[in-house]
Amino acid sequence: MKSIDRREFAKLSFLAAAATALPLRAETQKPVRFAPVGLGVISNIFMEACAQSTKCKVTALVTGHAKEKAPKYEALYGISPKAVYNYENYDEIANNPDIDAVYIGLPNSMHAEYTIRAAKAGKHVLCEKPMAISSAECQQMIDACRQHNVKLMIAYRVHYDPMWQQIRQMARSGALGEVQGFQGGFYGPKMSGWRLDRKLAGGGSLLDLGIYPLNAIRWISGEEPASFTAQVASMLPGPRFTSVEESIEFTMKFPSGLLASSGSSYGEAAPAYLSIDGTQGNLWVEPAFLYDGLKFHGRTIHGPVSEVSSGKQPYQFTYEADHFADCIRNNTQPATPGEEGLKDLLAIEAIYRAAGDPIA
Amino acid sequence: MKSIDRREFAKLSFLAAAATALPLRAETQKPVRFAPVGLGVISNIFMEACAQSTKCKVTALVTGHAKEKAPKYEALYGISPKAVYNYENYDEIANNPDIDAVYIGLPNSMHAEYTIRAAKAGKHVLCEKPMAISSAECQQMIDACRQHNVKLMIAYRVHYDPMWQQIRQMARSGALGEVQGFQGGFYGPKMSGWRLDRKLAGGGSLLDLGIYPLNAIRWISGEEPASFTAQVASMLPGPRFTSVEESIEFTMKFPSGLLASSGSSYGEAAPAYLSIDGTQGNLWVEPAFLYDGLKFHGRTIHGPVSEVSSGKQPYQFTYEADHFADCIRNNTQPATPGEEGLKDLLAIEAIYRAAGDPIA
Repeated sequence: MKSIDRREFAKLSFLAAAATALPLRAETQKPVRFAPVGLGVISNIFMEACAQSTKCKVTALVTGHAKEKAPKYEALYGISPKAVYNYENYDEIANNPDIDAVYIGLPNSMHAEYTIRAAKAGKHVLCEKPMAISSAECQQMIDACRQHNVKLMIAYRVHYDPMWQQIRQMARSGALGEVQGFQGGFYGPKMSGWRLDRKLAGGGSLLDLGIYPLNAIRWISGEEPASFTAQVASMLPGPRFTSVEESIEFTMKFPSGLLASSGSSYGEAAPAYLSIDGTQGNLWVEPAFLYDGLKFHGRTIHGPVSEVSSGKQPYQFTYEADHFADCIRNNTQPATPGEEGLKDLLAIEAIYRAAGDPIA
Repeated sequence: MKSIDRREFAKLSFLAAAATALPLRAETQKPVRFAPVGLGVISNIFMEACAQSTKCKVTALVTGHAKEKAPKYEALYGISPKAVYNYENYDEIANNPDIDAVYIGLPNSMHAEYTIRAAKAGKHVLCEKPMAISSAECQQMIDACRQHNVKLMIAYRVHYDPMWQQIRQMARSGALGEVQGFQGGFYGPKMSGWRLDRKLAGGGSLLDLGIYPLNAIRWISGEEPASFTAQVASMLPGPRFTSVEESIEFTMKFPSGLLASSGSSYGEAAPAYLSIDGTQGNLWVEPAFLYDGLKFHGRTIHGPVSEVSSGKQPYQFTYEADHFADCIRNNTQPATPGEEGLKDLLAIEAIYRAAGDPIA
């Protein structure tokens, strides 16, 4: 995308859309203008996604390190130095009509404050998961966005991935018989930085990684878990895991009787996977929750299935940002509203309670 | 094997062994003579395994259905009709010097009684897993075999599979860094018959299928689980799962901090798998606990690894039976003695307690 002119690309897209008789509105709607809040790894991916979209545009930045971080993005995306805010003057985004929405890519404990301040400034909010570090904060965020009449969407990129949508559709279509169980997990590299500080992260690998299989299971099953068990462990030596759990394994039972187990770890160099188990078939997604390279295989009542996603990072973010842009332009409700983030936090709190939350 | 004469095969084996300079004792030791007790599916496989072995031989049968079942095996394996016993005259095996050992392939609830009666008859015992339906029974079996000076081995066929031995060796060698976690499960077809009757089975899918990942995790880690959580579910409609659980998911924490989750189900048509998670690598076994067709792949500190087992059913049973035959002939302790079965039952009881054992 960076090698061709934005306007040229938009024109090409328009012609391509016309040629294939796609609806034109999506190509002609005015881009939603975003201010990413926090310029870490994930905001960087989000900005790349906007650069690949005709519906989204980055027009402002919010960062505590303007001097080091802003110039690169100003140059890349044509952002005015006047549209670079910090955490003190953040509320002044209210006075910038070139900002429609913020993208919250901050440490978890800051999501609530910066969402609520954006709502008060009249800006829509796309907030990274986990939505916050407690269900109480989630409710405050929902209330603030409702009160100030701005949209709130949680950035569950998996929901916007066409392959995941296909997987969910298959699981819900009866092609596996009755879905009775899930097993899954997300086991990541050794993390460092704010993720290991409970004050900033709110929890350990469960909040950062385990939320993926948890959310996928809730989303695909369409049910809310009713009972939980969990155990946590921190084996890696040294002081890194004194404030958050390194590893967690948990089980969830749903009202229908559906049973799931899942886990996450900062220490285990294992695959991310999800197994969806029906009475007559199975779908096995592995790798499951990464930015790209996703695959699944399995067996349905119609025969074997297998697929490798052709999407390349940041494609999930682009679908996600485009969806939010559509919601804003068409005044519709996001598929993953604040209520979806709240439900995950309620489950996460129940899992930590089940584990005896020995670290808190 | 069935197409060539037994003696001819033994001679060929002897020549082959001599030609490749293998130790001769294994080829020349007198075969251990087995009486399978119960002639269901698994005893049938065991007898096929003996037919492929020079160390084992089936010389008697114990069955409640002699008329229907015995003639086939008498013809196949050259068993005398005089060496066919039933459950009433079972103790008379004591008077048959052509029986060295019994193979217990009965419903779980009968393992203890028929092991103890065999011990009293002076016969060695190879008993299928689960060893029994309670740890108390396991202890009685161990005591009886010790008292009567016969060997007791539990038929953990996974321990005798060369590929599983290789997997365990890799996991314990440091090639994955420090092993911190396991995830696994064994999800089988819809079972029927005695497995759905708690009086005979002692429990549901955990005792029949979940014992595989449980035992593999204990075996590979070399640790005993210290704390447990579990949830059970029975979703399939109808009266089949009123006495035993259909599905179970459980977590186990080990003294080192190692964390495992695993499960089993009679309803979920899902893969059998085991993921072994180290700080620097992973081994993924899938399918994991079947009679053949096993595969694993993964990543170690030395690079990627991948293998498909060439073994064909009943190869695991042959290795297993040969090991027991060696133990008997050389007066050594089996690698999977009664104590190994007891440890699984202690863990299984703890898992059922953690689940609240709602069915008992």
